[in-house]
Amino acid sequence: MATSQGNLINSIRIVGSGLIGTSIGLALAARGVMVEMQDRDPNAQKLAQDLMACAIAPDPELVLFAVPVSALSEVVKREFALNPASKFIDVASVKTKPQLEVSTIQGATERFLASHPMAGREVGGAASARADLFEGRAWVYCPSYSDGTSVDSDVVEAGLWLINLLGAKAISMTAGEHDAAVALVSHLPQIVSSLLAAQLQKGRGAELELAGAGLRDTTRIAASDPALWKEVIASNASEILPLLINLQNDLGSLIESIEDPTRVASLISAGNVGRALIPGKHGGKARDYYMLPVVIEDKPGQLAALFEECAKAEVNVEDLTIEHSPGQFTGLITLALSANDADVLQKHLEKSGWNVHVPR
Amino acid sequence: MATSQGNLINSIRIVGSGLIGTSIGLALAARGVMVEMQDRDPNAQKLAQDLMACAIAPDPELVLFAVPVSALSEVVKREFALNPASKFIDVASVKTKPQLEVSTIQGATERFLASHPMAGREVGGAASARADLFEGRAWVYCPSYSDGTSVDSDVVEAGLWLINLLGAKAISMTAGEHDAAVALVSHLPQIVSSLLAAQLQKGRGAELELAGAGLRDTTRIAASDPALWKEVIASNASEILPLLINLQNDLGSLIESIEDPTRVASLISAGNVGRALIPGKHGGKARDYYMLPVVIEDKPGQLAALFEECAKAEVNVEDLTIEHSPGQFTGLITLALSANDADVLQKHLEKSGWNVHVPR
Repeated sequence: MATSQGNLINSIRIVGSGLIGTSIGLALAARGVMVEMQDRDPNAQKLAQDLMACAIAPDPELVLFAVPVSALSEVVKREFALNPASKFIDVASVKTKPQLEVSTIQGATERFLASHPMAGREVGGAASARADLFEGRAWVYCPSYSDGTSVDSDVVEAGLWLINLLGAKAISMTAGEHDAAVALVSHLPQIVSSLLAAQLQKGRGAELELAGAGLRDTTRIAASDPALWKEVIASNASEILPLLINLQNDLGSLIESIEDPTRVASLISAGNVGRALIPGKHGGKARDYYMLPVVIEDKPGQLAALFEECAKAEVNVEDLTIEHSPGQFTGLITLALSANDADVLQKHLEKSGWNVHVPR
Repeated sequence: MATSQGNLINSIRIVGSGLIGTSIGLALAARGVMVEMQDRDPNAQKLAQDLMACAIAPDPELVLFAVPVSALSEVVKREFALNPASKFIDVASVKTKPQLEVSTIQGATERFLASHPMAGREVGGAASARADLFEGRAWVYCPSYSDGTSVDSDVVEAGLWLINLLGAKAISMTAGEHDAAVALVSHLPQIVSSLLAAQLQKGRGAELELAGAGLRDTTRIAASDPALWKEVIASNASEILPLLINLQNDLGSLIESIEDPTRVASLISAGNVGRALIPGKHGGKARDYYMLPVVIEDKPGQLAALFEECAKAEVNVEDLTIEHSPGQFTGLITLALSANDADVLQKHLEKSGWNVHVPR
C-alpha cells in the first residue's frame, strides 16, 4: 500500500491537468501524497483527479503550476492570494518569463521556485500521463533571480524533494542559462523536425511509401501540439534566433557545395561529432567499450557456456547484443568489454575453440 | 533443417560484406541457399562468411552487388566477365548512376537489375547484420532503363523472388522516380539531422545534459557514416538541391517571423500535416516477445549463473538488454523470450531464489 510516511510534503494542488501535471500527480499519489488536480477544462480535471484515486487537502502545502506560459501570471496571482503561506513551483518550458512575471507579484517572489523537467511526449493530455515520465530525466530548478533575490530555502527544499522523489536529476541553473540550453537541445530540434516534416507535403504517395525508420525518427516530434509550441518558441525567440541563423548559414554553405563529396563528408562528420556530445542515459558520456563478436550456434545452452567462459576468464561483460532471427542457424553475440577485458577474453575464447572475431 | 527445395536460386555470390550484403546473405543462407560472401576487407569477408555457415558454389546463379556506388562499375565488369550467364542485382542507394554505368558494359545491360531495399541502420558492418532487416520494408526495383531497354525477364523474376523471400514489399519504379523519392524521404532527413547535430558542437556541457528523447531521435541518423553518405548525396545532388532550397526558403520565413506565435503555429501545423503523410509500417511484423526483468548483482559470474539457469529451464533467450551504471551495485537484465518460455523461466528463477519480476 502507498504510505505518506517520510514525505516532506503531504498535500499538493496541481494547477493544469495536462501530460506533465497529471504525470507528476500520478507519481505523488502513488507515494501517499494527497493530490488535488485542477484545470480550466472540467473534463480534463475530472479525468486527472479520478486517476489519482486519493484524498484532497483544503490548504495544500505545495502548489504546482503546469499551465502554458501565457496563463501562468494569472494563476500564480490567484493561488498566492488564496494561500500565501504555501510553496509554489512551476514546470513551464521557459524560465526567464515566469520569473519576470512572478517578481511583479508583491511577496510571491521568494515563495516561487521556477523549474523545468526535461520530459514530455509528442502526445499530450491527462490520458497520456505516466508516473514514470521523469525517471532518469534532467529537471532544472532556478534557486535565484537575475536581480540576486534568492528563493526561500524551504521552497527550494520542497522542489528538490519533488524532483528526487520522481526519480529525476536536479540541475541548478539561472533562468538565462536554462533558456539558452533549451533553445539548443529542445526548441531547435522541434523547429528542424517541423521544417523537415513540412517538406513532405510536396511528396507524392508513391514517394512516401519508401519512408523508413530514419524519416520516422527525425519527424516524430513534428507531431507536437502547435498551440503549446507557438508559445514556447515565441517566449524564447531571442535565444532561438541566433541558432536558426547559424543553421541558415550552414544550410547555405551546403547548398553551394552539394556536388562536392568532401564538403558533404565534412557536414556528416560534423553531425557525428555533435551527436556524440549527447550524454548517455545516465548522464555522463557514452562509455567507450570494445565490441567482441562471437558466432555461436543458435540453441539453448550456448549462452550459458559462453558466460561460463567469461567467468573463467574473470572479465566483466558490460553489455551485449544478440542478433539472430527465426530460421537462422547461427547467432552473433557481441559482447561489450573494457579494452583489457576484450583482449583477455578474445585470447581465452580462441584457445577454447570458440568462433571469436577481432574486437573493435 | 534448412532446405533449398523450392528456391528459384540455389547459389549466390554477394560482393560487399557490409550491413546490407551480410543481412541478405543471412536471410538466404537460412533458407538453404549457398551463399558466398566477398569483400575487399578480408576480416569483414571472413566474419560474414562464418555467419553464413553454408557451402559455396563456384558459379553462382545470382551475383548481388552491395558495394558503394563508386565501386559498382568495376565489380560489375569483373563479375560479368567471370560469369556472363549469371544474373546481376545491385542494392545501392541511388539508381540513375548505376544504370548509366552498366549500360556502357557491352551485353551486361539486360542481365542487370537495379534495386534498392529501404532498410538500414546507423551502425554498419557485417557484425550489425540481421536476417530480418528487410521484413516489411519497401524494396524498389527498376525493370527498365531510361532509353526503354528492358531487363531480361528471368533476371527481374530472380529479383522479385529475392525481395519476396526476404519479406520486403517490391515496388517497381524508374531510376528517376526512385532517385526523386529517396531525395525526399531519405537524403533530406539525413542532411537535416546532420545539420541539426552539427549545431550541438556549439553547446556547453551543462546544456547538453538537458538533452531528451526529442533531440536523441532527431539526431539518431546523424551518427551515420560520412564515407557512405558523401557518395550517396553527391550522386543524387540534382534531386536533393531543389528540396534544400525549399527548406532554405521556409527557414528564412521562420527567421523573419520567429516572434509571431501565429506564424510559428503555422509551421508546427505544416509539420503535423507532413508527418501524418508518412504511411505506417508495411505490415512490419515486429516480433512479439515477452520481456522478463531480472535484478542481479553487478559483478562477474552473475550472467553466467543466470544463463546456466536458462539452460536448465530449457528456454531460448531471443535477446537481452543490460542496464547498469558505474557506482550502481545492481544491474537490471531484461530477457526477451517467447510467451511460454517467459512463463517457464519466471517460475524456475523464482524457485531458485532469483530477484525476477513479472514478464510483460
